[in-house]
Amino acid sequence: MIQWYDYVGYFGSFLTSITFIPQVYKAWKTKSVGDLSMWMMSIVVLSTIVWLVYAFAIGSGPVIVANSIVLVLSLLLVYFKFSFKS
Amino acid sequence: MIQWYDYVGYFGSFLTSITFIPQVYKAWKTKSVGDLSMWMMSIVVLSTIVWLVYAFAIGSGPVIVANSIVLVLSLLLVYFKFSFKS
Repeated sequence: MIQWYDYVGYFGSFLTSITFIPQVYKAWKTKSVGDLSMWMMSIVVLSTIVWLVYAFAIGSGPVIVANSIVLVLSLLLVYFKFSFKS
Repeated sequence: MIQWYDYVGYFGSFLTSITFIPQVYKAWKTKSVGDLSMWMMSIVVLSTIVWLVYAFAIGSGPVIVANSIVLVLSLLLVYFKFSFKS
């Protein structure tokens, strides 16, 4: 039976998924990423891969979806970091 | 019984916990946060609060610890955003 906190978890997954959308948008618009930490983005990429392994192991759809989205967005930020002059 | 993927989950929690440490360090050292998206940081703050509600509801210690750390670090970044000139 679905509990109230399951909906809270889905809402958390949703928020986590969209976290980097405004950052990607800002970086794309300003072509400026000098203040972004390459270490932060590297940890994000690595952590999403680790979470994806975990999510596939336990068969958790929402965790797979959320981390796939974050992985793509953080890889985009890493790409921007290399392409834009800072 | 603890499965191999539980350790993967703990590793994911650890990585998520430390994600913002290099960003906080970089922001503090450079006193420059102009390229950071305020929207991103606001979503991070909100999402950690939502995850904390979920984690307390299901009694998940690792999720509570990870999100508490991320909450403190993201609030620090929001504070930097207001204090440092960009």
